[in-house]
Amino acid sequence: MVNETQHTCSASSSSKSDGGSSSGSESSKDSSRCSTPVLDADRHERLREKMRRRQDSGDKWFSLEFFPPRTANAAVNLISRFDRMGTGGPLFIDVTWHPAGDPGSDKETSSMIIANTAVNYCGLETILHMTCCNQTKDDITGHLQKAKRLGLKNIMALRGDPVGEEWEEEVDGFNYAVDLVKHIRNEFDDYFDICVAGYPKGHPEAESYEADLRHLKEKVLAGADFIITQLFFRSETFLKFMKDCQAIGITCPIIPGIFPIQGYHSLRQLVKLSKLEVPQEIKDVIEPIKDNDAAIRNYGVELAVSMCRELLDSGMVHGLHFYTLNREVATTEVLKRLGIWKEDPRRPLPWAVSAHPKRRVEDVRPIFWASRPKSYIYRTQEWDDFPNGRWGNSSSPAFGELKDYYLFYLKSKSPREELLKMWGEELTGEESVFEVFTCYITGEPNRNGHKVTCMPWNDDPLATETNLLKEQLEKVNRRGILTINSQPNINGKPSTDPIVGWGPSGGYVFQKAYLEFFTSSEIVTALLKVLKKYELRVNYHIVNVKGQNITNAPDLQPNAVTWGIFPGREIIQPTVVDPVSFLSWKDEAFALWIEQWAKLYEEESPSRMIIQYIHDNYYLVNLVDNDFPLENCLWQVVDDTFELLN
Amino acid sequence: MVNETQHTCSASSSSKSDGGSSSGSESSKDSSRCSTPVLDADRHERLREKMRRRQDSGDKWFSLEFFPPRTANAAVNLISRFDRMGTGGPLFIDVTWHPAGDPGSDKETSSMIIANTAVNYCGLETILHMTCCNQTKDDITGHLQKAKRLGLKNIMALRGDPVGEEWEEEVDGFNYAVDLVKHIRNEFDDYFDICVAGYPKGHPEAESYEADLRHLKEKVLAGADFIITQLFFRSETFLKFMKDCQAIGITCPIIPGIFPIQGYHSLRQLVKLSKLEVPQEIKDVIEPIKDNDAAIRNYGVELAVSMCRELLDSGMVHGLHFYTLNREVATTEVLKRLGIWKEDPRRPLPWAVSAHPKRRVEDVRPIFWASRPKSYIYRTQEWDDFPNGRWGNSSSPAFGELKDYYLFYLKSKSPREELLKMWGEELTGEESVFEVFTCYITGEPNRNGHKVTCMPWNDDPLATETNLLKEQLEKVNRRGILTINSQPNINGKPSTDPIVGWGPSGGYVFQKAYLEFFTSSEIVTALLKVLKKYELRVNYHIVNVKGQNITNAPDLQPNAVTWGIFPGREIIQPTVVDPVSFLSWKDEAFALWIEQWAKLYEEESPSRMIIQYIHDNYYLVNLVDNDFPLENCLWQVVDDTFELLN
Repeated sequence: MVNETQHTCSASSSSKSDGGSSSGSESSKDSSRCSTPVLDADRHERLREKMRRRQDSGDKWFSLEFFPPRTANAAVNLISRFDRMGTGGPLFIDVTWHPAGDPGSDKETSSMIIANTAVNYCGLETILHMTCCNQTKDDITGHLQKAKRLGLKNIMALRGDPVGEEWEEEVDGFNYAVDLVKHIRNEFDDYFDICVAGYPKGHPEAESYEADLRHLKEKVLAGADFIITQLFFRSETFLKFMKDCQAIGITCPIIPGIFPIQGYHSLRQLVKLSKLEVPQEIKDVIEPIKDNDAAIRNYGVELAVSMCRELLDSGMVHGLHFYTLNREVATTEVLKRLGIWKEDPRRPLPWAVSAHPKRRVEDVRPIFWASRPKSYIYRTQEWDDFPNGRWGNSSSPAFGELKDYYLFYLKSKSPREELLKMWGEELTGEESVFEVFTCYITGEPNRNGHKVTCMPWNDDPLATETNLLKEQLEKVNRRGILTINSQPNINGKPSTDPIVGWGPSGGYVFQKAYLEFFTSSEIVTALLKVLKKYELRVNYHIVNVKGQNITNAPDLQPNAVTWGIFPGREIIQPTVVDPVSFLSWKDEAFALWIEQWAKLYEEESPSRMIIQYIHDNYYLVNLVDNDFPLENCLWQVVDDTFELLN
Repeated sequence: MVNETQHTCSASSSSKSDGGSSSGSESSKDSSRCSTPVLDADRHERLREKMRRRQDSGDKWFSLEFFPPRTANAAVNLISRFDRMGTGGPLFIDVTWHPAGDPGSDKETSSMIIANTAVNYCGLETILHMTCCNQTKDDITGHLQKAKRLGLKNIMALRGDPVGEEWEEEVDGFNYAVDLVKHIRNEFDDYFDICVAGYPKGHPEAESYEADLRHLKEKVLAGADFIITQLFFRSETFLKFMKDCQAIGITCPIIPGIFPIQGYHSLRQLVKLSKLEVPQEIKDVIEPIKDNDAAIRNYGVELAVSMCRELLDSGMVHGLHFYTLNREVATTEVLKRLGIWKEDPRRPLPWAVSAHPKRRVEDVRPIFWASRPKSYIYRTQEWDDFPNGRWGNSSSPAFGELKDYYLFYLKSKSPREELLKMWGEELTGEESVFEVFTCYITGEPNRNGHKVTCMPWNDDPLATETNLLKEQLEKVNRRGILTINSQPNINGKPSTDPIVGWGPSGGYVFQKAYLEFFTSSEIVTALLKVLKKYELRVNYHIVNVKGQNITNAPDLQPNAVTWGIFPGREIIQPTVVDPVSFLSWKDEAFALWIEQWAKLYEEESPSRMIIQYIHDNYYLVNLVDNDFPLENCLWQVVDDTFELLN
């Protein structure tokens, strides 16, 4: 496609034939390019622009609704669900507002904090619901300010359910969603994208269907950017509603709310709340199978798929909004059958990108937090600038303090008993620790028959990429090189490679081999002798808990270990080994021995003392093989070290 | 080598066993790393530090002295000499101060401007001489301020020769070099590195050798950083002088001034000026051959080599300073025979780095000025920040205006008659222009038997790298694709590659294939059709003199076309195709048709009208093949275009 760029110079700034022509000094002023290479345009667009672009390109999309959980444990599970369902490529998720659950508070189960986690830690475009009735202007403004501060950019403006039976309009108060829409636009100008609710059958309290349509139009005129509808049971219901909206001049996107029936009770409860009528043909199917959850879910999926197909086939619908009820299976199934679940989600960068607007230029991180990305985001949340292009350009990296809170929050998926089964009820020596590491790598059960599916430094089973190194990793862990992070070298694989690829297609990705491990001072002594032979080829950083630090890195320079070359772009180098950040990571990595592992055991117990001994005496080592086009030499380095010790 | 970095953490900032340890936020504050990847440490060091580092490493060095030329033409030649002799790797050059020649003025032959050119355009560490007698404090301060503004960092502080026979000390004036040294330190603190002169035989006006040594010590105590000596004829003279200096406590570096005898008359004149005695054994050789310049020069080289060897062998001498008399052959010969001329000068970056301290972080430039680096430096001299790491990070590039002055200055090496012989006394059509381009590429003489050794866009014969593409370039130029810039694709050659290598050893360099040319609108129309087939692979920018601009570059993003991966460093990407800068370059590239070529002919003459037609109607095109690991497809693009036209 031949584009005339926006930048096209007018003839007035062109060269004059006397050669003394004015040059780019004016023409460059109107340059609107951004300072980051826009690997994914998405990162720089607001939600309404993304929606518009998808509509223009004919690319169908979906979104997912969740409600805040009741317990901290449920929150941890919900966040894992965000991560998993995020891989399917929702355009956004939304989090409902629970007036009864202190929704604007800092509690880890509040609507505000769940939405914050979705944006910042899971990298999801997120809409936070907000209801206005029975709240003061100051309360509302406070919530909105907080949402803005946390990086939330989208609000679903709702009236909410009045408290008590008798509801009276308050003068100057928030009586309807439209008041909230106006308030947001008054106080925050165009900062938020605003969504409002539409009722395909009319709001149950509205005088009439027509009156309700007029209310909806008022909300749009007050500044709403798009509409999500209440659930409905027949596609005709929605399509008629949409035509009626258009007929009275509502032109913004209207997104159908899809409710896959997942069980008899949840359906009944929803019907009661929404005051909707379930069509007879559905009742006829469900009633006879009401005690068979699987059968109902299968029917619900079937029904949702066929209704969604009708909607998409109508040509009027570009996106589908799913009421998930915080469940995964039914919705995922519907999306997969519709073919709009992204089977091969392209990664814009090798690590999960945060959706906070402050971080939109961020494109390089230290490799150390590769398995703890949420910790990295948490510890850098106060940064004003994120490194973009070059790590060294960022101001000196001041990492937020390590707090117990964070060491555990989002981390305690496995209860203590589970961890003890994996990591050993009783340790008999350093070798028992080696064994735990080895079992984690191999996936084999430990001597008590339990698989080791996580480690203090790795919340999840081994990454696919690390699997490439499995055999060597097993060998070295057995002998006390306790690996916590590694990557193979890659010399120009296509950016679409299913394992190591990232970024837009048509590019090439590269990596330097990396290995990070804890090991004893005895092994470190031998290792240092061996490393002399590899002086120019291998960069190393070796540090103990006290901060004794041995390195051959020149001038504290970061070493780029992952980079990509793309058509028409500058080089992207998303991962570096940064000597300065390594010292912050060191504190965290050593602390995890104690906080996650040692504290499983009684004080003064032999098991606890073994972990404490490792914490106090081992070194944390990282190695980079700079010769990425050659065979990875780090295994040879380790072999040479063991040989020297023998 | 195992280095304990300066950054080594003290135990106080280490992890506490309760896991709530403080982390990098303090330890990173004392980080002293710089924000640029220090590919060559030299760029960040002042001259005295470079000297110290060379002395510590035992790496012998040399420096070169020049005097300002009398005519603009001689200035152009001298600057070419700087470029050529710069490749041998001098630690610095110095430019003498000619009080009679308005040395601090803006004339292109002044000491100030020659030194400015050496630093900024030739990238040479430069010492500007400055004399103080018969000058007011304000004059001197003005010169120093100007030198600082131009990026000069080193001053050779001299007294200079008094005017007239009778010389009287001025009260409060500058009577001796030591007054100038003090003044520089008073007014400019530690900004400048200061050099002073030493006289191995004593200054001719000094009361005694010993008194002169005491004066020298005063100059050092006043703040001089090192000493360069007057010439001498025997190594013993220097070695004795050096010991005497040390004996009275002069500890700074003392650099012997070497004068290779190059001719009878220049020797006699120098002896007269310096009031030195030529030893009898030298006179005995020279007198009989005084009319044979070649013989004298051979003898001079011989003599200099053997004296330099004695100096270096003494172990007391680390660097040698050469009085070149603005000549090249003798000094280069001596240096080559001594083995300290760098035969394979490593390029820190693919383009010549400017030595202005403001530009020390600069590590990326648009490819367009590859053959006109001095123009690029000139047009960006007002920039406050230079791009470092990423082009897009730099502020919007506002290029200085194109001035006639610069279009010609440093450019007019060939006189008009010479250019007419190369480019045609009379053009008969566009084809005559094609022929000129073709002859420049092939190196074959044109139809009148003259070789085309330069073009308006290329001051020098074809670069070695471009030779790699010669055959294809010839073919396309013959048919009206008039190439002015190109590079082959490179997929990971060692950074030490003699043709395409740059940067420190142990790295790998990469390039995307690039082709830039002028061509007719007919060819552009066909080209655009062909480019549709290469949409994702080839990025293009096509612009005419009026600024009509056709491109498929996404979002005005720059495209990195040269990059390097080095041990322990971030990625360096020194060359980009920047869509915004291209429009400034377009003005310059089109103006050169008129200013350099059309104006060779009479107004209204057919030849001039042909060039004017091309200027008004042709397009400037650049193409990048993003698929650097595959065979360059740009030739196929051009072939397809010609085929479409047939």
